[in-house]
Amino acid sequence: MSFVPANEGISKLKPYQPGKPISELERELGITDIVKLASNENPLGCSDKVKQAVAAELAEIGRYPDGGGFILKDQIQAQFGVTADRITLGNGSNDLLEMFARTFVSEKDSVIYSQHAFAVYALVTQAINAEAIEVPAKGFAHDLDAMAAAIKDNTKLVFIANPNNPTGTWFEEAEFEAFMQKVPANVIVVLDEAYVEYFPENFNSLKFLEQYPNIIVSRTLSKCYGLAALRVGFALASVEVTDYLNRIRQPFNVNHLAMVAAVAALKDEDFIEQSRIVNKAGMKQLEQGFEALGLNYVPSRANFILVDVQADPVQTFNALLKEGVIVRPVGIANHLRVSIGTEAENAKFLTALAKVLDLAPDAVEEKA
Amino acid sequence: MSFVPANEGISKLKPYQPGKPISELERELGITDIVKLASNENPLGCSDKVKQAVAAELAEIGRYPDGGGFILKDQIQAQFGVTADRITLGNGSNDLLEMFARTFVSEKDSVIYSQHAFAVYALVTQAINAEAIEVPAKGFAHDLDAMAAAIKDNTKLVFIANPNNPTGTWFEEAEFEAFMQKVPANVIVVLDEAYVEYFPENFNSLKFLEQYPNIIVSRTLSKCYGLAALRVGFALASVEVTDYLNRIRQPFNVNHLAMVAAVAALKDEDFIEQSRIVNKAGMKQLEQGFEALGLNYVPSRANFILVDVQADPVQTFNALLKEGVIVRPVGIANHLRVSIGTEAENAKFLTALAKVLDLAPDAVEEKA
Repeated sequence: MSFVPANEGISKLKPYQPGKPISELERELGITDIVKLASNENPLGCSDKVKQAVAAELAEIGRYPDGGGFILKDQIQAQFGVTADRITLGNGSNDLLEMFARTFVSEKDSVIYSQHAFAVYALVTQAINAEAIEVPAKGFAHDLDAMAAAIKDNTKLVFIANPNNPTGTWFEEAEFEAFMQKVPANVIVVLDEAYVEYFPENFNSLKFLEQYPNIIVSRTLSKCYGLAALRVGFALASVEVTDYLNRIRQPFNVNHLAMVAAVAALKDEDFIEQSRIVNKAGMKQLEQGFEALGLNYVPSRANFILVDVQADPVQTFNALLKEGVIVRPVGIANHLRVSIGTEAENAKFLTALAKVLDLAPDAVEEKA
Repeated sequence: MSFVPANEGISKLKPYQPGKPISELERELGITDIVKLASNENPLGCSDKVKQAVAAELAEIGRYPDGGGFILKDQIQAQFGVTADRITLGNGSNDLLEMFARTFVSEKDSVIYSQHAFAVYALVTQAINAEAIEVPAKGFAHDLDAMAAAIKDNTKLVFIANPNNPTGTWFEEAEFEAFMQKVPANVIVVLDEAYVEYFPENFNSLKFLEQYPNIIVSRTLSKCYGLAALRVGFALASVEVTDYLNRIRQPFNVNHLAMVAAVAALKDEDFIEQSRIVNKAGMKQLEQGFEALGLNYVPSRANFILVDVQADPVQTFNALLKEGVIVRPVGIANHLRVSIGTEAENAKFLTALAKVLDLAPDAVEEKA
């Protein structure tokens, strides 16, 4: 129906399809005890200190959040050494990614991102009806040389993820430094570090932030910090970039319980350390499980892993659903993305995977 | 610094200035016991059933919200008789107002709103760099005839609030019907009903929604429902308009605790009824107080009232701050907007107002 034409970019836009929530799947299939390894959530949930902090604020539900985000910016500043005038708060990092594009990109501009990258980069570009330049991946990883070479006169923004979702691939500081030296100073480089907490030893983005005022570092508390339900992310950038972003930011974009939870989550370093330990053990468990099944996987520095199921991923996804395990087909042939769960969740997934692929651990010998 | 030029609309944009949170004011002035009547919050806070519902969901903080908003749309459908495919959820109604503009308005289009209207209408229009047509108010109210006459070929959207914020003014069904008959079918009319719960007997917007597929009704749970901290709003529209809006909606824009709270809030009709009673009593208390002080006010059908303080509003606002009362200057000469509080809060405000204006209830006689 065309009585009210939407903007051109919107009319062509196919919305993001979120992973199915457990409750919806239980409704559909009439089963319980479902294991969800589809959305790269923290299998430990969140810190108990977060729950206590949120519970203590229930009397404040009637009041608007602090639009300036004082307490949360204060904690971020204390922890990351970046002053409040360089911090932008987001309703999850999705909100930030959209703000970056809306602030700096117009219909006549282009945006660069990699093949096999986070779906939201393409969506926020399409919503503006800007030109999208998707640079072929190198294996499953960003090809930073090719991405730098793809920059055109009308390029305003490059989205880069380290590690990358949905592939788990990463790059080192020297590669990024070489890339940044090729990027013109008037092109914004978004360094999306949604998963950085899992392997923080690899890369110091804050150092680059000081060196290149056209970098925006994007972080989220939805992953390792375990606050996916509450929607909190933050961006670190120059004072000038931050000023622009905050002009377009909805004044109450981050809700009050989310800010209170984020402060508690950032302070609880023990929970993050425990989450890393669980993730590393789970990663090893899945890698060994895949090897026993004779399946290849893409080495990952995130909280998920991309496995080659040697079969149609959507069919395999559906078969796993019926076994009570939710994973994620991500548009890569033969591959499924699986989030690292607890030991029991990973074991249930591996058993289900062996069953639906008609494999068994001892089948490895037979196939070899 | 111009190394990364932001989009034209953003560069000119002056961000919304939220009302000061109590905590910030206490920090600034070193006082406590502050009464905040600045943001049209519910002085009762939220329903106890909301707090219970949120407390019961703390174990779910690690999981993403349901991007489809199943449970909340189900409750809205049950309560308002509008099917889920006609409901769009928002991170507060600010998020919705921005979605409306971004979906239907481009740089070459125009947007119409009234003088003395909600500041966000102008902001979302400016962010797009679209043409803003502000139609002079009639007294303090929308001039619907003039607004209809202002529609041009490039007009895509008209923002209308009933009752209006910050003036509290309203219009009747017959006036709106006459307006809609003049609006072309390809122009979106946003009917912002943020305050409708306080005087619901005046206007049935759902009837108009069925009659005019170019109407979007916008509601929020930040006001009468008392969920300002959590950010929940919803829009009711045609299936086609809703489909467009949901293409641009961030998939997890409404957080999980907000959805759970919203379901509990919508169900608790006793709390809404109690809130109405407190609001009507408080409105009468303030009206009588203003009359005793010899001050004029604008009759309101919301949870706030605009009073003519016969003085500079910003100076009066600052003087009231020092007395521990936060109200809101809203850019209207000599007027301040004050939210209806509890009986004690209203009394404290009236006493402070009399003091800072150097008036006394018996001064009325002397001045007459």
